[in-house]
Amino acid sequence: MSPTPVTMADPTTPSAYSWEATDEQVSARYGVPLEQIARFDLNTTVAPPEFALELLTTGAYGRAISEYPPSDYRALAVAAAEAYGVEPDEILVGAGADEILDLLAKAFLPPGAGAVVPVPTYAMYSVLTEQRPARVLRVPRMPATNGYALDLPATRAAASEAAVVWLCSPNNPTALAEPAGTVAALLADLAGDAAADGRTPPLVVIDEAYAEFAGETLLPLRHAYPRLVVVRTASKAYALAGLRVGFAIARPEIIAEVAPYRPPGSVSIPSVAVVTAALRRPDALAANIARITAERARLAEGFGAAGFPTGPSVTNFLLVNFGSPTRAGAVADALLRRGLVPRTFGAGHPFAGHPLAGHLRFTVRSTDQNDRLLAAIGEIAAAGAPASTESPA
Amino acid sequence: MSPTPVTMADPTTPSAYSWEATDEQVSARYGVPLEQIARFDLNTTVAPPEFALELLTTGAYGRAISEYPPSDYRALAVAAAEAYGVEPDEILVGAGADEILDLLAKAFLPPGAGAVVPVPTYAMYSVLTEQRPARVLRVPRMPATNGYALDLPATRAAASEAAVVWLCSPNNPTALAEPAGTVAALLADLAGDAAADGRTPPLVVIDEAYAEFAGETLLPLRHAYPRLVVVRTASKAYALAGLRVGFAIARPEIIAEVAPYRPPGSVSIPSVAVVTAALRRPDALAANIARITAERARLAEGFGAAGFPTGPSVTNFLLVNFGSPTRAGAVADALLRRGLVPRTFGAGHPFAGHPLAGHLRFTVRSTDQNDRLLAAIGEIAAAGAPASTESPA
Repeated sequence: MSPTPVTMADPTTPSAYSWEATDEQVSARYGVPLEQIARFDLNTTVAPPEFALELLTTGAYGRAISEYPPSDYRALAVAAAEAYGVEPDEILVGAGADEILDLLAKAFLPPGAGAVVPVPTYAMYSVLTEQRPARVLRVPRMPATNGYALDLPATRAAASEAAVVWLCSPNNPTALAEPAGTVAALLADLAGDAAADGRTPPLVVIDEAYAEFAGETLLPLRHAYPRLVVVRTASKAYALAGLRVGFAIARPEIIAEVAPYRPPGSVSIPSVAVVTAALRRPDALAANIARITAERARLAEGFGAAGFPTGPSVTNFLLVNFGSPTRAGAVADALLRRGLVPRTFGAGHPFAGHPLAGHLRFTVRSTDQNDRLLAAIGEIAAAGAPASTESPA
Repeated sequence: MSPTPVTMADPTTPSAYSWEATDEQVSARYGVPLEQIARFDLNTTVAPPEFALELLTTGAYGRAISEYPPSDYRALAVAAAEAYGVEPDEILVGAGADEILDLLAKAFLPPGAGAVVPVPTYAMYSVLTEQRPARVLRVPRMPATNGYALDLPATRAAASEAAVVWLCSPNNPTALAEPAGTVAALLADLAGDAAADGRTPPLVVIDEAYAEFAGETLLPLRHAYPRLVVVRTASKAYALAGLRVGFAIARPEIIAEVAPYRPPGSVSIPSVAVVTAALRRPDALAANIARITAERARLAEGFGAAGFPTGPSVTNFLLVNFGSPTRAGAVADALLRRGLVPRTFGAGHPFAGHPLAGHLRFTVRSTDQNDRLLAAIGEIAAAGAPASTESPA
């Protein structure tokens, strides 16, 4: 189960997710005690909301754990519909957003078809596309000065030969949402182009894993563009990544097209119970978002004070430009020696060669862990971060 | 999310699992209070082992539920390896056996390839094959008088044009294991045929979901036939279906071929913790198997006393022949009106037209639920089960 780098689809070396090292692997490699490892690379929250653990420890999940989860996840779908302001038949439940993405690829991406992936973005869109096997139509995003926004003309052009368009807003790892109105404009163009050509418009997926942090959603666009699927998750703002629950939200006829690909049951009974409850606790959600937003500002300020200005973020992570892959690698190494794990985009990574290769991504964690990170960044800056051997991006 | 019947692969009506009705749906349709519904159709256990619920209610899962599960599920894989008597690198973890089957289809069944499915058997092998989309090569099993065993010559012949052979032993819903030595003989033939033709032997999957009840495993055959994958689950004898954990067991080079298709993480953290513990509790496993075996004998005797002889079973369920689809349907209806849910194989089911269409399948449940079932069966027999309008199978 060793990580395999992302590659083009090939029957002997299939495209695959590049798994993060485990705590134990980091501990062994960098000689840091296991309990000192802090994960700034996974965009998770340090602790779940209290009520979630309380509910788990009651053992009362509405159904014995020796039984299968309910085949329609009805109570969970109803809670999700209420939380997201949609109808229950617009909800499909999956084992995390990752299973939702897989089901969408199965339902809408026939072998050999094309799928648009504006890069850089979350790696799984390309992996799932290439595993179908289907063709990834990579479209570079605009530069940092344009907020890494979609290149609308290029995306539109690529979409003309695509069955699926994978979008992510706010985008990971660039930390920003698409500028207001741009996705709506793109969808109108895609619908118009398809109508002019007499073909079905592509399915457009918008992964909104980080939408709660940004406080806005593109869900209403499903009315104007029926072939839109929005993906949501309990893993990020709800702070329940370990329960593996995600959702597809789309018009009922699209949900009906995906449903046959759903396995008999992939979400555990405790997960169903806790996430159903979590969707009814907007207070806990708001508190987690407020805490992370405040910590994000503090973390950004600390990085800036150390001489490493961060890019803007509407998410629970920061993208920091260290000027060159060498320098970013050296900072990552110095952090790892302290047990602090950043997300890297260096050698062997699909972003190698891209300007992001000089960046590191940091999750906003707890006050304590953020303090450790800022102290380490201060030490690294004071020691003189290694000079870049390449021109800054 | 309404159930879709199993059909041949078709881009507009994809093959899909036929979901069981929920308790709520049965309650509404048959006018039975929800708390009186008893599920004899899912081959699950009424209650989990006590230590499992105790561990869940401690809330101590070795990792916060706000984090992702460990990317290598190392502790779980080690526990599974010890329980199954294999090496950790021979284990792949999935969200139930169903995810394992899906990963195997992705890794070894290219679009357009063929897959052998000896029928009747668990529906998902055909569903996953057709969804690739790939071709199902259906091979009828031998009749009941031969224990529904594999038709070896026909299976061997079909396998010559197959990338995958889906086996299930003990088989669901026929409740028996393949006769001793037959799978080994089949594998030897498949290897010989492939060598003679100069092709790679097909991947052979043996779903051993019910193996613990039978007390035997075909795992050792992976040494003689390297392209063998055995599938195991925590859902049946371990009585933890609601946690959604299953395993592929195969030689390391086969596991390495499947691993790239694994999602970033699909098994919840509480599930990882509890199943890791459960694999180290052979006492609890043995107790559950002993209880079910005793109840199975009692249930079979009761059915026989009511005039409905059951077939032999080495699993946690019984297959009962009611002589005709009409009669089986009438008995099922009479049971459902009492809140007792059997597994049916009637109209709209892939087994329609097959001799099994006159059968019902019953899970061995708790003493109380089994008592209710036997009382109902006695009443139905006393009232005179509707005469068969078709000749008995």
